[in-house]
Amino acid sequence: MTPSTHTFSARLNETAELIETHLQALLADNLRHGEIARPSRLMAAMRHAVLGGGKRLRPFLTIEAARLFGAEGQGPLRAGSAVELLHCYSLVHDDLPSMDDDDLRRGRPTVHRAYDEATAILVGDALQTLAFEVLADPETDSDAAVRSDLVLGLARASGLGGMVGGQLLDLTAEGRYGAVAMGEAEVRQLQMMKTGAILTFSAEAGAILGRADADARRSLVEYGRALGAAFQVADDILDREASSEALGKRTGKDREKGKATLVDLLGLDGAKRECRQLVEKADAALASFGDRAQILRDAVRFVVEREV
Amino acid sequence: MTPSTHTFSARLNETAELIETHLQALLADNLRHGEIARPSRLMAAMRHAVLGGGKRLRPFLTIEAARLFGAEGQGPLRAGSAVELLHCYSLVHDDLPSMDDDDLRRGRPTVHRAYDEATAILVGDALQTLAFEVLADPETDSDAAVRSDLVLGLARASGLGGMVGGQLLDLTAEGRYGAVAMGEAEVRQLQMMKTGAILTFSAEAGAILGRADADARRSLVEYGRALGAAFQVADDILDREASSEALGKRTGKDREKGKATLVDLLGLDGAKRECRQLVEKADAALASFGDRAQILRDAVRFVVEREV
Repeated sequence: MTPSTHTFSARLNETAELIETHLQALLADNLRHGEIARPSRLMAAMRHAVLGGGKRLRPFLTIEAARLFGAEGQGPLRAGSAVELLHCYSLVHDDLPSMDDDDLRRGRPTVHRAYDEATAILVGDALQTLAFEVLADPETDSDAAVRSDLVLGLARASGLGGMVGGQLLDLTAEGRYGAVAMGEAEVRQLQMMKTGAILTFSAEAGAILGRADADARRSLVEYGRALGAAFQVADDILDREASSEALGKRTGKDREKGKATLVDLLGLDGAKRECRQLVEKADAALASFGDRAQILRDAVRFVVEREV
Repeated sequence: MTPSTHTFSARLNETAELIETHLQALLADNLRHGEIARPSRLMAAMRHAVLGGGKRLRPFLTIEAARLFGAEGQGPLRAGSAVELLHCYSLVHDDLPSMDDDDLRRGRPTVHRAYDEATAILVGDALQTLAFEVLADPETDSDAAVRSDLVLGLARASGLGGMVGGQLLDLTAEGRYGAVAMGEAEVRQLQMMKTGAILTFSAEAGAILGRADADARRSLVEYGRALGAAFQVADDILDREASSEALGKRTGKDREKGKATLVDLLGLDGAKRECRQLVEKADAALASFGDRAQILRDAVRFVVEREV
C-alpha cells in the first residue's frame, strides 16, 4: 500500500463517518420544521435503507471538490448527504420485485424484504424528497442562488433525462419491452444516465458550493464524467470477475439477463484499457489545480481498483 | 347557477387549459438542457399519467393566490405545473398493486395497467424530480430566494412529514401492519398529511411568488389549511354518497378496508356541518384581501360542492 493510498483510505473512512452521523441526524425521530408527524415505521425503514453501509463515495466527491475551492463544514456535508439520500432512494426502488428483484443489498435484506413493497416504494419516494429539502434549506448555504443551483443540478442529473431515464433504458436493455440489440453508443448512453450523471453532479456540487468560476466548474464536470465512466467500466469488469460473496449481492446478473456490458463490447482487456484512459482523462481535467487536487485523482484510482 | 359560480367555472377551465398546454410542453419529446436522452417509453407513460384529466385545482390555487399579490404569467404557471406534477406522481404510486391496487384513474387505465409496474414506479419517480427541477429553474422566477423557498415548501409538504408520511399512515389505517383503532385526532392528522399539506402549499406558493409579507403569507396558509380539510371531509362524504360511475373509480373502498373516515367519526350530518365551518374559516382567513379574494373563496365552495 503506497502512502498516498493510505492517506486516501483514511480520508474516505473519516468522511464516511461524518456523513453517517449527519444522515443519522436527518433521519432521527424528532420532528423538524413544517412536519406534521414522522411515522415510526417509515423512519425505521428509511434508516434501514440509508444507514450503516456504503463507501459514501458521492458525498466524498462533493466534500473534496468543495475543499478545492476553500468551502468546508456544514454546507458540503449537507449537500453530500443530499446526494447520498438520492442515491439510496434509487437503490431501494431498483431492488423492488418489479425492477431488479434483489433480496440483498450490502449483505443485508433489501427494504422490501425487511419491510414490505409498499413501504419500500414510500421509503424511496421520501428519500428523494428529503434530498431536495436538504439542498433547499438555508442551513446548506446562506446564498439562495447556490441552493437553487444545487437543486437544479441534482434534479437534472437524477430525473427522466438522467438516472431515472437510465434505469428505464436498463430495463429495456433486458429485453422486457421487446427484443433489443444495443451497440456501444447505446450502452455508453445508458451508463452515463444511470450512474454517470449523479457521480458527475457529486463533483460539480463542490464547485457550486465553492463559488467556482465557469472554467473551474467545467473542469470538475469533466473530471466527474471521466470518473463516472470509469466507475461503470470497473463495475462491468467486477461483475464478470468478482465472486458473489465479496460483493454481497448476486453477480453475473447482467449476462444472465442478456444485457450487453462494456466488457462484452470491448472485451476484458479492452475494458481495462479504457479504465486506464479514463483515469488519465480525469487527471488531465484537474491539471490546473495542481497538487491540491491529488485526493480527487486518488478517488478515480480507488474507483477503478476497488475490490468491494 | 349564480353568476359567481359561472365565472368561477369558466376561470377554472381556462386555467386548466393553460396548465395542460404547459404540462404538454414540459413532457414533450425534445431534450432540454442537461438531459442526455428522453426515453420514449418513459415519456409516453409520463404523459399518460399527467395529461388529459383532472380539474388542476392545485395549480389553480397557486395561480389565483399569486394574482392576489400581482404576480402573473410564466412564474405562477410553472410553479402550479410543478405542484400538479408532484400530485400526479403521488397518484401513480398510490395506484400501484402493492398500495391501493387501482385499475382505473379518471376513467382510464392506471399507469401500471397501461404500461407495467416498473414503468409506473419510474414514472412517479421522474415526475417528482421534474417538479423540483421546474421550481429551481430560473425561468420560474428570476429571484433565487423565491425558487429556493418554493422548493423547500413543496419538499416539506410532500415528504416524510407530509404527503408520503400520510400515505404510510393510510396503509397503517387499513390494518396491514397490525390492528389499529384510529380516533378523530389520528384521522385528522393523516388527512392533513396525505392531502392537506400539498393543498396548503398550493396556496402558499402564490404568496411566495407574489413576495407577500409574513402576515399575508400566513393568511394564505390558513386559507389553504381550511380548504385542504374541507376537501378531505367532502371526499369522505362523496365516498359514502356518490356512485362508482360518477367518480370514475371504485368507491366505498375506505369502508371496505375498515379505514375510519370523518363520516364514521362525525356522522354524515356532522361531516356536512364541519364542511360549512371550514368554508367560513377559509373566508375569514382571506378577510384582509376584500373582494379581490372572491375567486379563492369560490374555490372552497367548489371543493365542498363538487360532484365529480
